[in-house]
Amino acid sequence: MNAAALADLLQADLHGTGAAPAGRPRHPAEATAPDDVAVAMDPALVPLLATCAARVAVVHRDAVDAVPHGAVDAVLAVGRPRVAMAQVTGAFAATPGVPPGVHPSAVIEDDVTLGEDVAIGPFVHVAAGARIGDHTVLCSHVSVGARASIGPHSLIHAGARIGGGCTLGARVIIHHNASIGADGFSFVTPEKGSVETAKETGRVQATNVGLMRVHSLGAVTLGDHVEVGACACIDRGTLTDTRVGDHTKIDDLVLIGHNVRVGSHCMLCGQVGIAGSAVVGDRVVLAGQVGVADHVSIGDDAVVAAGGGVGTDLQGRAVYAGTPAIEREQAFETWMMTRRLKALFRDVRTLKAAVKTLDPRESGSA
Amino acid sequence: MNAAALADLLQADLHGTGAAPAGRPRHPAEATAPDDVAVAMDPALVPLLATCAARVAVVHRDAVDAVPHGAVDAVLAVGRPRVAMAQVTGAFAATPGVPPGVHPSAVIEDDVTLGEDVAIGPFVHVAAGARIGDHTVLCSHVSVGARASIGPHSLIHAGARIGGGCTLGARVIIHHNASIGADGFSFVTPEKGSVETAKETGRVQATNVGLMRVHSLGAVTLGDHVEVGACACIDRGTLTDTRVGDHTKIDDLVLIGHNVRVGSHCMLCGQVGIAGSAVVGDRVVLAGQVGVADHVSIGDDAVVAAGGGVGTDLQGRAVYAGTPAIEREQAFETWMMTRRLKALFRDVRTLKAAVKTLDPRESGSA
Amino acid sequence: MNAAALADLLQADLHGTGAAPAGRPRHPAEATAPDDVAVAMDPALVPLLATCAARVAVVHRDAVDAVPHGAVDAVLAVGRPRVAMAQVTGAFAATPGVPPGVHPSAVIEDDVTLGEDVAIGPFVHVAAGARIGDHTVLCSHVSVGARASIGPHSLIHAGARIGGGCTLGARVIIHHNASIGADGFSFVTPEKGSVETAKETGRVQATNVGLMRVHSLGAVTLGDHVEVGACACIDRGTLTDTRVGDHTKIDDLVLIGHNVRVGSHCMLCGQVGIAGSAVVGDRVVLAGQVGVADHVSIGDDAVVAAGGGVGTDLQGRAVYAGTPAIEREQAFETWMMTRRLKALFRDVRTLKAAVKTLDPRESGSA
Repeated sequence: MNAAALADLLQADLHGTGAAPAGRPRHPAEATAPDDVAVAMDPALVPLLATCAARVAVVHRDAVDAVPHGAVDAVLAVGRPRVAMAQVTGAFAATPGVPPGVHPSAVIEDDVTLGEDVAIGPFVHVAAGARIGDHTVLCSHVSVGARASIGPHSLIHAGARIGGGCTLGARVIIHHNASIGADGFSFVTPEKGSVETAKETGRVQATNVGLMRVHSLGAVTLGDHVEVGACACIDRGTLTDTRVGDHTKIDDLVLIGHNVRVGSHCMLCGQVGIAGSAVVGDRVVLAGQVGVADHVSIGDDAVVAAGGGVGTDLQGRAVYAGTPAIEREQAFETWMMTRRLKALFRDVRTLKAAVKTLDPRESGSA
Repeated sequence: MNAAALADLLQADLHGTGAAPAGRPRHPAEATAPDDVAVAMDPALVPLLATCAARVAVVHRDAVDAVPHGAVDAVLAVGRPRVAMAQVTGAFAATPGVPPGVHPSAVIEDDVTLGEDVAIGPFVHVAAGARIGDHTVLCSHVSVGARASIGPHSLIHAGARIGGGCTLGARVIIHHNASIGADGFSFVTPEKGSVETAKETGRVQATNVGLMRVHSLGAVTLGDHVEVGACACIDRGTLTDTRVGDHTKIDDLVLIGHNVRVGSHCMLCGQVGIAGSAVVGDRVVLAGQVGVADHVSIGDDAVVAAGGGVGTDLQGRAVYAGTPAIEREQAFETWMMTRRLKALFRDVRTLKAAVKTLDPRESGSA
Repeated sequence: MNAAALADLLQADLHGTGAAPAGRPRHPAEATAPDDVAVAMDPALVPLLATCAARVAVVHRDAVDAVPHGAVDAVLAVGRPRVAMAQVTGAFAATPGVPPGVHPSAVIEDDVTLGEDVAIGPFVHVAAGARIGDHTVLCSHVSVGARASIGPHSLIHAGARIGGGCTLGARVIIHHNASIGADGFSFVTPEKGSVETAKETGRVQATNVGLMRVHSLGAVTLGDHVEVGACACIDRGTLTDTRVGDHTKIDDLVLIGHNVRVGSHCMLCGQVGIAGSAVVGDRVVLAGQVGVADHVSIGDDAVVAAGGGVGTDLQGRAVYAGTPAIEREQAFETWMMTRRLKALFRDVRTLKAAVKTLDPRESGSA
């Protein structure tokens, strides 16, 4: 690749020598080779171009003039830096490094369908009746349960678990040690227990005796282009599948409980937890550590700020925050007022004293 | 199975043809085979029975009359739907699918005791001196450390780690990639560090120099019928074992720190974290994402609502919420009052103006 | 080991028979063998020494006189109990139990450099070009990606994943099923999406269409003496490495996002989450379940109390709490005032009535 080709790819304006080599994108502070591309989307990084070895730089359109004179041979000017970052990193992304074919240590059981050009690494176990789509890569130590199905062009990283009967779409990415299709967490007591009585009366009026297990007969279905982070867990449904829609991205350590339905194009950030049977619309963004209670419903395009606890249904196309989560503006206003409580307590003390002074009976008794 | 047999199992009232086939429980919207059993515990699902292929339905006792005429051949009426759900899913639950015996790829070290009818999957490692109880199943990629012991009829899912010396009871279930017996997180500085001075004085008056590691010589002991979710972590104790009592159920991504003691019949929901040396009583319910501070004690039958942060000892048989967690009723009342602060600030402003008007000195100066 | 040698090791005062056997440290309630060492740092445990089988006890210096007469043959008196706990547990800590050499089932690819005395367990996969330092132990089911490097004297527990190109220092410990080097969670829409418009205007004014993936070309670099807990996840950087400094200790289920830089000697407790590009100073302590927003910076020696949500830059050498996190003292004071709101509302009601009475216009109309 050279500067001209990269400019093309990024739809960037090229200033300088199109033939300059573009071998590997790097932070300007770490661009030590002459064929490195120094990526300085942040204007604060542009001065570093003066001392780096790279001969090609990518900068924001507004920062072109700030590039030190003669620092590089070619400047690529982009309009929306993070989009350019997606493009440039995509162009140079490493392949998973699992050679095509099935590693001799892998255990592939009967009646497994392997697509064309699959790559299956060491210590992979694919149980009976599973289907692996064309060009899909299973890295080392992956397990795929009986009759599970993984679509084409998918990438399952080391140690991920795909439970029996689960269905993954095309171009799905599952990261290290994620769990797709563990059993749901669902128990019931023969008689009403502590939580049930507390919900009805506000008080614990019974004790949990004889927990019975609700078994998970459903599986998990993930749409196309879904990504699931490391050590994230998506549990099976009870009778039907737990479902995640196309293009939804799920970060590390996220928990999606049994029977949950998540729409398409959602972003569920790190450590989000969604309890059983909740329904999340399309294009919903849940920031880090957000919790969603069971059976709750969240509308399309809703955004919940980090750490929020969603206890009730939320309308779509609005921003929420806090626990219990309310509209972010109100939550912030309320929080700001709590920060001014000291003054309010003081004002009320002053008022009490003043009123006492004004009261003729009080004055009379003085 | 037929309708009559299933009715027996569920202690349900049977209306219709006892001989109708009952092959597989399904959500009414997905009951497409004539031997499916449409499970419509939720009254809102009952109308779907009109169009599903199932010939047998399970409904709540109060919804029998709402079943569309002629929709199914047999209606099973139950009193407590989630109990029936536990029973019906239990009757049809799949077996783990690991054939009896030891897979040829498994590595079983010396002096391991394997019970009768154990089933050990591919790439399982059982270290020296471990004991695996009768009828216990170790799925693929499980590791069992030296001298660990797993009771009979247990099920260890793919990728779970059972550390050396840990003891699991009978009928225990451990899900994908859970960690039993990692080392506790315990460090100390030779001199008082930042946290110690902050606890004593409210201020950081020292810095953490030379972190020393407290090693974990204890192990983990889980009682009978304990279930541990995917990617959950239960750490070893320092000198004694971290302990979880019989019948306690632990959801995905839960963390139980070193030296913690959890009682029996507890439910620890998704992403709960319990810090070192805390003591949790019997039948305690911690909802999703609850945190419990180190050395804290929680009484029997306590319930902590989702997202609560337990910083002090809690009495049993009550419901708590918030951070720091207080009785739920008070937490809710306080939260409701913060929502009315805007009006309170306005009232105080009005009062200040009114009092100013009433004050003769103020009036006099007007 | 005997009492005298152990006293030496702990720099403890020895009272009694130095030759008494010191075989294994135990909780006094579980010290059943005559060569057990009863560790009773907590004064409440000292009376138990009367009935335990141990002939050696370790107690706090102030508790020596409380040891029951004749209970043990030797008492070791220490000044700072947790430091003594670190020393005594360190002296008796078990070795990982992986025999030196490479287990025959392990898969070691081409161009791998194995140091002296490495111990590699069953089902380990080391990809091409990786380097394993002297005396380092890889337990069962570990995977090490291409060109990754692990320093000497490190210990990688079962199922941990070390991604391609990642660099771990010397004496690093990685626990069960942790993920080092999964891809960062970073997506962008071609046009401004919901979160961007919400940040700018407070409202959701656009929808997320066409999520593009920012690929992670960087890796992860961990310093010397770093410890990473079970199922913890440290993601790769975008262009540069995500970095963790020397001696930093990371608990189970912690998430460190892409591009994050964590300093040295930090303690990140259970379930902490640090979003992309945040910068954490040296000796910072983040208690359990703390969340840190992306791009935020935290100063040296800062302490954030459990459950706090850090949304803005924090100065060092102070204690913070709450969401959004503010100085702990203020957060606590604010929280205490919210607990007194009921009285404040009552006072304001009373004042309104009193002012009404005082108002001559109101009085006149009576």
